[in-house]
Amino acid sequence: MREITLNEVASLLKEHDEFKILTHSYPDGDCLGSGYALAFILRKLGKKANVAVDGKLPSKFTYLTARYEEQDFTPSYIVSVDVAAPALLGKSVLEGVDHIDLCIDHHLTNSLEAEHRYVDGKAAAAAEIIYQLLELLGVELDADIAGGIYTGISTDTGCFCYTNTTPRTHQIAAQVMPHCDWQAINHINFVLKTRAKLKMERMIYDTMEFYAGGKCAIIYTTLAMCEALGAGDDEMEGLANIPRRIEGVKIGITMREKAGGIFKISVRTNDGLDAAAFCQRFGGGGHPAASGCSIEGDLATVKKKLIDAVEEIL
Amino acid sequence: MREITLNEVASLLKEHDEFKILTHSYPDGDCLGSGYALAFILRKLGKKANVAVDGKLPSKFTYLTARYEEQDFTPSYIVSVDVAAPALLGKSVLEGVDHIDLCIDHHLTNSLEAEHRYVDGKAAAAAEIIYQLLELLGVELDADIAGGIYTGISTDTGCFCYTNTTPRTHQIAAQVMPHCDWQAINHINFVLKTRAKLKMERMIYDTMEFYAGGKCAIIYTTLAMCEALGAGDDEMEGLANIPRRIEGVKIGITMREKAGGIFKISVRTNDGLDAAAFCQRFGGGGHPAASGCSIEGDLATVKKKLIDAVEEIL
Repeated sequence: MREITLNEVASLLKEHDEFKILTHSYPDGDCLGSGYALAFILRKLGKKANVAVDGKLPSKFTYLTARYEEQDFTPSYIVSVDVAAPALLGKSVLEGVDHIDLCIDHHLTNSLEAEHRYVDGKAAAAAEIIYQLLELLGVELDADIAGGIYTGISTDTGCFCYTNTTPRTHQIAAQVMPHCDWQAINHINFVLKTRAKLKMERMIYDTMEFYAGGKCAIIYTTLAMCEALGAGDDEMEGLANIPRRIEGVKIGITMREKAGGIFKISVRTNDGLDAAAFCQRFGGGGHPAASGCSIEGDLATVKKKLIDAVEEIL
Repeated sequence: MREITLNEVASLLKEHDEFKILTHSYPDGDCLGSGYALAFILRKLGKKANVAVDGKLPSKFTYLTARYEEQDFTPSYIVSVDVAAPALLGKSVLEGVDHIDLCIDHHLTNSLEAEHRYVDGKAAAAAEIIYQLLELLGVELDADIAGGIYTGISTDTGCFCYTNTTPRTHQIAAQVMPHCDWQAINHINFVLKTRAKLKMERMIYDTMEFYAGGKCAIIYTTLAMCEALGAGDDEMEGLANIPRRIEGVKIGITMREKAGGIFKISVRTNDGLDAAAFCQRFGGGGHPAASGCSIEGDLATVKKKLIDAVEEIL
């Protein structure tokens, strides 16, 4: 395993001809946008390239594959994009794969085994790296490549709002926008809301409680609520950010009941409060402002444990 | 009245020394960000400049004036920024003003009387024009100027999401970000939600009804609801966009009860449905995708009129 430069990445891509591009499970806008953009770039260079997606492509992202068709060949070079850890590679993605030749990622914590690795922790999205590769490879932007790159950088930055955004993110957006229907992409990813998601939000709002003088907000979902709404992972997307957004809240906690009497806890904090340290009390961990853990018990018991811990630290 | 070029605007600003900068009533991020940024630019050039704001500066925007103090002088040159029509100039803003020397704006419909006018309809925000002036005037960015410009362009584009965003918008963001605390600005303008606003949204969600096979969504607020929540204009901000966002909705209608048995109606449409034509049926009007009107009557009567009209056009 060797860490390489972006120029070396470009050289490796030039040297090989039959690519399989691996994306992570629960595929999001960045791994898909980056993956398909890279495939379109390689195909423009006369190479063969397929993207491996775990399960079905989420329907909201089908626009990425409007002009993509699976090619028939045996891949000889395996590239992962936006995959931070081995556990994030789904079974179907790993079909016929016994090693990874090249890992391209932007998660500093990347722990994937690969012959060559390029990890740029300053890139807001893996798609930023794909844009830089496009330039190094001398490939011209088209609607497919630009759409993939715009999707990656916009979704991973919450439409240029999150703190991982950099001037480079905006500069790349300025370059790719003229080549793709970014308005339609924004509509799909940031404007549209399904009725199921709307119902879930209504129900979630009704569960919100404040503690520690308003510095802590807690929301929850139960298995019964999800069943009543027919809600799945799509409806759960983004829920963890709801309590943290309320004015005055320093720690926002989202409790999601899972099968087997366990609650999955997401913790989001403001003003430098350490979410990872909070979650470590319950055997979890993560980032300073966004962490998680699992706690066994019924709703009331788990909630009480969390509130007790909150009142200890606040 | 004469339309002038941006270079001429820069020359006029250089020639004068004592400025009053007018902003519009119900001041938003763009008129305030642009106004204070322009004042800071002019002060850096050794000139005197004050910003006139109608009423109290909204508390969320006080960060724009962290290093701003009113200067004591009699203004000799009056500049309006982001003011699209005479009716948008509040009384207190017009104190001591009998004419406008220079109008700087980005609303193509601008109808303000001014000796010289510069209206760039392609600018996503007036703040884009202020950034260009900064360059022409050779002034260096600092935290105050950059914070004002970032506030203007980010708020007028919904954080780079709305269709008025252009590559130039992103390029300017890339330039000003390193000089200001854009993360804090985003947190205030796009992340934080007051508890009053949260309560209002919960109540609004409970009023949502669908018609025309899900192609129309209607929400409403009544005087009683606003009174119960202590909700004012701040909590109403953005409500009109809620129904349009739901998947499958072509026309989203927001009804707000006003004193005197009148409902103020906001109509937002998708897929090219003409909101202005819809509102003209009730004596209103506006833009193709965002229009309004007023209808007299009680909640049930007004709602029925709207639904009847919707079912006629869909």
